[in-house]
Amino acid sequence: MSRPHKPIRSEMGWSTPDRIVVRGKDLPGEILGNFNLGDMAFLELTGRAPDANESRLFNAMVVTLVEHGITPSALAARLTYLGAPEAMQAAVAAGLCGLGSVFVGSTEGCAKMLTEALPDPKEKTDLPALARRIVQDYRSRKQIVPGLGHPIHKPVDPRVPRLFAIAKDTGFYGNYAELVQQVQQEAERASGKRLPLNATGAIGALCCEMGFDWRVCRGLGVMARAVGLVGHLLEEARTPIAQEVWYRVEDEASEHLRPDEP
Amino acid sequence: MSRPHKPIRSEMGWSTPDRIVVRGKDLPGEILGNFNLGDMAFLELTGRAPDANESRLFNAMVVTLVEHGITPSALAARLTYLGAPEAMQAAVAAGLCGLGSVFVGSTEGCAKMLTEALPDPKEKTDLPALARRIVQDYRSRKQIVPGLGHPIHKPVDPRVPRLFAIAKDTGFYGNYAELVQQVQQEAERASGKRLPLNATGAIGALCCEMGFDWRVCRGLGVMARAVGLVGHLLEEARTPIAQEVWYRVEDEASEHLRPDEP
Amino acid sequence: MSRPHKPIRSEMGWSTPDRIVVRGKDLPGEILGNFNLGDMAFLELTGRAPDANESRLFNAMVVTLVEHGITPSALAARLTYLGAPEAMQAAVAAGLCGLGSVFVGSTEGCAKMLTEALPDPKEKTDLPALARRIVQDYRSRKQIVPGLGHPIHKPVDPRVPRLFAIAKDTGFYGNYAELVQQVQQEAERASGKRLPLNATGAIGALCCEMGFDWRVCRGLGVMARAVGLVGHLLEEARTPIAQEVWYRVEDEASEHLRPDEP
Amino acid sequence: MSRPHKPIRSEMGWSTPDRIVVRGKDLPGEILGNFNLGDMAFLELTGRAPDANESRLFNAMVVTLVEHGITPSALAARLTYLGAPEAMQAAVAAGLCGLGSVFVGSTEGCAKMLTEALPDPKEKTDLPALARRIVQDYRSRKQIVPGLGHPIHKPVDPRVPRLFAIAKDTGFYGNYAELVQQVQQEAERASGKRLPLNATGAIGALCCEMGFDWRVCRGLGVMARAVGLVGHLLEEARTPIAQEVWYRVEDEASEHLRPDEP
Repeated sequence: MSRPHKPIRSEMGWSTPDRIVVRGKDLPGEILGNFNLGDMAFLELTGRAPDANESRLFNAMVVTLVEHGITPSALAARLTYLGAPEAMQAAVAAGLCGLGSVFVGSTEGCAKMLTEALPDPKEKTDLPALARRIVQDYRSRKQIVPGLGHPIHKPVDPRVPRLFAIAKDTGFYGNYAELVQQVQQEAERASGKRLPLNATGAIGALCCEMGFDWRVCRGLGVMARAVGLVGHLLEEARTPIAQEVWYRVEDEASEHLRPDEP
Repeated sequence: MSRPHKPIRSEMGWSTPDRIVVRGKDLPGEILGNFNLGDMAFLELTGRAPDANESRLFNAMVVTLVEHGITPSALAARLTYLGAPEAMQAAVAAGLCGLGSVFVGSTEGCAKMLTEALPDPKEKTDLPALARRIVQDYRSRKQIVPGLGHPIHKPVDPRVPRLFAIAKDTGFYGNYAELVQQVQQEAERASGKRLPLNATGAIGALCCEMGFDWRVCRGLGVMARAVGLVGHLLEEARTPIAQEVWYRVEDEASEHLRPDEP
Repeated sequence: MSRPHKPIRSEMGWSTPDRIVVRGKDLPGEILGNFNLGDMAFLELTGRAPDANESRLFNAMVVTLVEHGITPSALAARLTYLGAPEAMQAAVAAGLCGLGSVFVGSTEGCAKMLTEALPDPKEKTDLPALARRIVQDYRSRKQIVPGLGHPIHKPVDPRVPRLFAIAKDTGFYGNYAELVQQVQQEAERASGKRLPLNATGAIGALCCEMGFDWRVCRGLGVMARAVGLVGHLLEEARTPIAQEVWYRVEDEASEHLRPDEP
Repeated sequence: MSRPHKPIRSEMGWSTPDRIVVRGKDLPGEILGNFNLGDMAFLELTGRAPDANESRLFNAMVVTLVEHGITPSALAARLTYLGAPEAMQAAVAAGLCGLGSVFVGSTEGCAKMLTEALPDPKEKTDLPALARRIVQDYRSRKQIVPGLGHPIHKPVDPRVPRLFAIAKDTGFYGNYAELVQQVQQEAERASGKRLPLNATGAIGALCCEMGFDWRVCRGLGVMARAVGLVGHLLEEARTPIAQEVWYRVEDEASEHLRPDEP
C-alpha cells in the first residue's frame, strides 16, 4: 500500500535504562515523594505541576467524586466481581462503563454551558442577565439545566458551600462560580421548584475556573470513581452482598412466570 | 420462594439531606480540603485516615503506577476512544481490562510470596536463608520470581531505590523490603542473569510493610492506571495516534492475503 | 425508609428443577436443535421465533457485521488479551467498548432517519421528494447522512446488493430499502461526491423493514462483533500480533523525547 | 531503535474496492444468505465452514448459553445501562466482564479435564477406571469437579439429555461424552451427594468431541451471552428494573449507619 505514514507521537514520557521521565519531570527525582496522587492527576491532565493552591482545590474536587455509596456503578462492579474474582480490573472496568450521561454527564454539561455562555471569564458581564438567558434557553428547549437538583440533598447540597469556600481560599472563586449560582437561583425562580446546585454542578464551575477543557470533567469523575470502586470491591471480598442481591432479584423478577408449586 | 433473606450491608457511607458521611467521616467537614486523592484512596482501602508517614509513602507508591507511557493498556484505551469518543468512561474501562496477570499481576504475586514466606514480619528470621528457600522453590517449579526483571531498567530500576528511601524516611522499611532484596540477589546468583528488583516488586514489598492484604495490590495498579488513562485520552483527543496505528496494522496484517493490484 | 417498592419483573424466562423456559418456549424441547444462533438472537430481541424468511434475512444481516478484519475494536481486544490472557471475557469487553458513534452508530443513525421520515411504511409517499428533503435537512445542518460513504468500497459496497437481494427473496424489500437508495442518489447528486450506500446503511434500512426499533441496531452490531472478537482472540493466542504492535508504537511515539544515545 | 520488526499478520480476511473475503470465503457470494450466525461463529473459530451435523450441534451448544435469566452479568449490564443509555455497547461489555472463573469457567475446566485425561479420544480406554482416577484426583486436592452440580436442576439438568441426543443424531457422541457421565456417576458415589452433570459440563465434553481447544469454551459462553445481554438491555429500555434494584439495595445497605430520623 502506498499510503504515506503519519507520525506517531506522544508527550507522556520516555525512559532509558537508568531514567524514567513523565511529562518532562524525572519520576524518581522530581515526582516520587513530592506529588500526591491528585497532583499526579493534575500533571497528567495539564502537563505541568500544580501550585499549592491548585493542588488543594483540585484534590478537593476529585476527592468529592470518589465515594457515593451503593451506586449502580458500585453494584455493577460488585456483581462482576462475584463471577470473576480473579479479574478485579474487569470489575472496576464494569463499574466505570456506566459513568455516562445520566450520573457523571452533568459535570461536563455544566462546564460546557458555562464556558459557552462566558468564553472569557475576565470580561465584565452582567451575570444575572446572563443567568436569565441561560435558564430561558434551557426552558424553551424543555431541557433540564445541568448541575442542578438532587433527590436527597435539599435545600443545599452540603458539598457545595465547602467546595466554594476552598475555591475562595485558593483564589479560584470567580465569575464561573458566581454565574452557576445565579443560574441556580434563576432556575428555582422560573420553575418554582427546589433546585439546589449539586456537587457535579459546582465541580463543573470550578473546572472552568481552573481553565480546564469541559472534556476533562468526565475524566475527573472516571478517575475518582475508579478509586472508590476498588474500595467497594475490597469490601465485597470481605462482606459480600452481590450474591444476595442477585438471588433476591432473580426470584422476584421471574416469580409471575413460574407455575405454582404444588 | 421461601428462601430467607440475608442482610445487605455496606460500611462505605450514608447520607441525609444535610449530611454526607464516608467511612465514618463527614465528607464536607473532615475530608474535603484535608485529604488528597491518595489519602482518600487509603481511607477507601483501610477505613481510616493515613497518618503523615503513611500518606507520604502510600501516595508515592500509587503515583509510581500512574504513567508508564504507551502501554498495551493505553493503546487499547486510545483505540476505543477512536470509535466512541462520546463515552470516555468506556475507553478507560477498556484500558483497565488488560491489567491482569502479565503486567500488574507481579505486584500481587510478590506481596503474596512475601506474606506467605514471612507471616509475622516482627519475628526474628534468617532472611538470607529464607530468600534461598524462596528462590529454590520457584526454580524447582520452573516459575519466575514475581517482581524481578525488567526489559529496559538494568542493572537497577531507578524507581526502586527512591521508593525504599521514602520507606526509610517514613519508618516503613522493614523485613519485607529487606527480604525482597535478598530474594533478588539470590535469584541473580542462582540464575546467573541480571534480575533487577522492579517497581512492581518494590511496591509489593511495601504493601506488606504497610499491612495491606495482597489483594489490595492489584487495586492500587488499577486505580493509578485509571488516572493515567484519562491523561492518555486527553492527549489522544488533542493529538490522535490511534487511527494511524489502526491503518498501519490493518494494511500490514492482510497484505499477504490481498491479490496483487494490477 | 418508607419509600414503597415498585415491582421487579422480567419476561426473559424462568426455571424449575426439571424445566427451563426462555421467552415462553421450552429451552430443551422447543429451542435446542431447532433454533440457530441468529434465530435465538431474534427470539431475544422480539420475544417470538422468526419464520423462515425472517430467519434467513436476520441471519444474513447479523453475519455481515461479525468480521471486519483488524479494526480498532479487534486491536483493543488483542492488546487487552496480551495483558490478561486468563480473562478472555475482559478482552472481548474491551473490544466492544469502542462500538460507539463512529463505527457502529451509523446503522442506528440510518434507521432513526428512515423511521422519522417515514413513520408508516405502508403509506403512499413520493419517495424521491422525501429523499430530497432528508438530504437538504442534513446538508443545512452540515451533518453527514448516516449509512453513506466508504473509504474502500467504491462505487458500490459489495454487501449491499447481496443484502437487498436476500431482502427481495424473503419479502422484506419495501419502502425503507427504496428510500435509503433514493437518499443515496440524492446525496451524491447534491454533494458531487461518490457516496455509496454502505452495509451499515443497508442494515439500518432492513431493520426498519423488519419492524425493529432503531435501538435494536446497535445491539445487532454489538452481538455480531462479540462473535468476531472471540475469533480474533483465538488467532491472537496462536499467532500473536499485539506485542509487536505495542513495541513499534511505543518506540516511535517517544523517540523524539529520548536523549540521543551515545 | 534498532530492534528489528517482526511481521504482523492476520488470516481473518481482506478487502479491495469490490471484494470482501472472510477466512478465505467471499462474504457476499459465499457467506451471506448461506451461513447462519452460529455457522459464522464456527468459521471464525475454526477457519472453515461447518458441515450440516457440525452446524446443528454447534448451534445447539451456543444457543444453550444465550439466556440464563437475571444473572449477575445481566444485572450488571442493566445497572450500567441505567447510567449510560447512550452507550449500549458499554453495558454489554460490563455484563461480559463477569464471565470468569465462577460461572463460565466450568465449561473450560471440564474440557481441560477431559482432554488431559484422554488426549487421544480414539484410543481404547477403560473409561470407568479413568473416571475413578479423575474423581480421586480432584478429591485428594479438595477441588470440585468442573461441570457437576446445580443449585436448581436436580437430579437432572434438562438441557443435558437433549444436548447428548443431538450429539448422537449428529455423530458427535463419543468417548468424551461417555467419560464425563462416568465422572458424574463416580463423583456422586464418592461424595454421597447429588451432583448432576450440568449444561456447562456437557458443553465442555461436546467441545472436546468437536475437536476444539479448551480455550474455545469460554469464547462460546462469551459470544452467546453477548446475544443474551442485548436482549436484556432492550427489555430494560422498555420495562426497567435497574433503578428499583439500586434504590432498594442502597436503602438497606446503609440503613444501619444512618442516624434515627426524628
